[in-house]
Amino acid sequence: MREYIEKSQDLDPKESGKVLYVVGIGPGEYGQLTMKAAAALSGSQIIVGYTVYTDLAREHFPDKEYLSTPMTKEVDRCCLAFEKAGEGRRVSLVCGGDPGIYGMAGLVLELAPRYPQVSVEIIPGVTAASAGAAVLGAPICHDFAVISLSDRLTSRELIEKRLSCAAMSDMVICLYNPSSRSRKDYLSWACEVVGRYRKPETVCGLVRNIARQGQEARITSLKELALIQADMFTTVYIGNSQTGADHGRMITPRGYRYV
Amino acid sequence: MREYIEKSQDLDPKESGKVLYVVGIGPGEYGQLTMKAAAALSGSQIIVGYTVYTDLAREHFPDKEYLSTPMTKEVDRCCLAFEKAGEGRRVSLVCGGDPGIYGMAGLVLELAPRYPQVSVEIIPGVTAASAGAAVLGAPICHDFAVISLSDRLTSRELIEKRLSCAAMSDMVICLYNPSSRSRKDYLSWACEVVGRYRKPETVCGLVRNIARQGQEARITSLKELALIQADMFTTVYIGNSQTGADHGRMITPRGYRYV
Repeated sequence: MREYIEKSQDLDPKESGKVLYVVGIGPGEYGQLTMKAAAALSGSQIIVGYTVYTDLAREHFPDKEYLSTPMTKEVDRCCLAFEKAGEGRRVSLVCGGDPGIYGMAGLVLELAPRYPQVSVEIIPGVTAASAGAAVLGAPICHDFAVISLSDRLTSRELIEKRLSCAAMSDMVICLYNPSSRSRKDYLSWACEVVGRYRKPETVCGLVRNIARQGQEARITSLKELALIQADMFTTVYIGNSQTGADHGRMITPRGYRYV
Repeated sequence: MREYIEKSQDLDPKESGKVLYVVGIGPGEYGQLTMKAAAALSGSQIIVGYTVYTDLAREHFPDKEYLSTPMTKEVDRCCLAFEKAGEGRRVSLVCGGDPGIYGMAGLVLELAPRYPQVSVEIIPGVTAASAGAAVLGAPICHDFAVISLSDRLTSRELIEKRLSCAAMSDMVICLYNPSSRSRKDYLSWACEVVGRYRKPETVCGLVRNIARQGQEARITSLKELALIQADMFTTVYIGNSQTGADHGRMITPRGYRYV
């Protein structure tokens, strides 16, 4: 591990060209960063991101220049990162979890042709679906659908269709962004949609502040889940017909046989 | 990073109790291990796993005792790991990617009540869906379904239903285990099922040996994908109606607007 980071710290923009690193920092806990992600942050001069994620990075990499843009200013944030990288600075754009799952990887790559002198490297991270699953047990150990309940960029009709289809084909459902100040009733609505195909006693779980201070986890039923007030920092799991709650763990069996 | 591993190496089974670590090693490249995963392996005396994964671990942690069981002996593998942990040895059971996604986390937790003296800690990793996505661009930056084509433990009817439902609700589809020696035509069959709902020119991608020696990536169409011979070390992405191929990258836009 030492050799790995020492080698990586030799990164020199003059030799390596102009690179923008898009870095997944995982759920938040320092140990859940990959070594590659830690090396990219350690070797950066500037770290750009939404404040929740720059604050997490700052705890472990305090000697950096930090730049943020507010929640809805994702395009500005990506352009800022490209501009700084274009000036020859070593820049990481940080995302919570994995940048390729509801993170900035897509938008960065869409904007990349405007900055032909900067190459982009995506450094994957542990996404909330994986990190939250490990807290609850093994809820997504079989086929699953990952669906965001945020309707900022997706119509509610399409979200409903995806929930229905995932429910009717008995996939485990992992919900990102289950609720927010302006969408207080969305989790309850999602439970109602899924409940058209799945029993009220279906095993469900939720984890809040995964691997961060104040982590909370709970295993419940679909019927009870509909009554819970979640927030943007909660990841929700709706089990399939085989999912069980065993010794305080939510487990979706793959189907291995044992006596 | 140094402090992290030094602290972790102090792990002592007499103090920490008997623990079985179920460790996701990510796609294979050393840098894509999380620091927590590297610390668990570094602090273990015995590393148990399927040979593909113990061979990957051995490259970086050579001074360990390695124990393996063949492909279909998953129950024996987990019991072996529990037994060694029960004897007071420091044991990690390694899984490729994330142990919670088609890995051993579920089975280990199902078997755990038989070994009440051993507690289980799941250490998540970067799953193939994330690692392969970073190679291709950003194919799963919107809602997606993860479906295994292996019918060893799941009926072909259920797999077909899940493929159909994911396709009809325009989710990106990420396929694990797309093919094997005994299921040579399964990827072609999956393309046919998805093709009932999605155009032949739908952008698709596949990555073989993600972050390992011999990594290969390709962006293609649904029509062409049906003709490709994949294997168990390939992860396949079938885009949604909005997925594009831009400057050699497969990108599923989230819907951010920019001029």
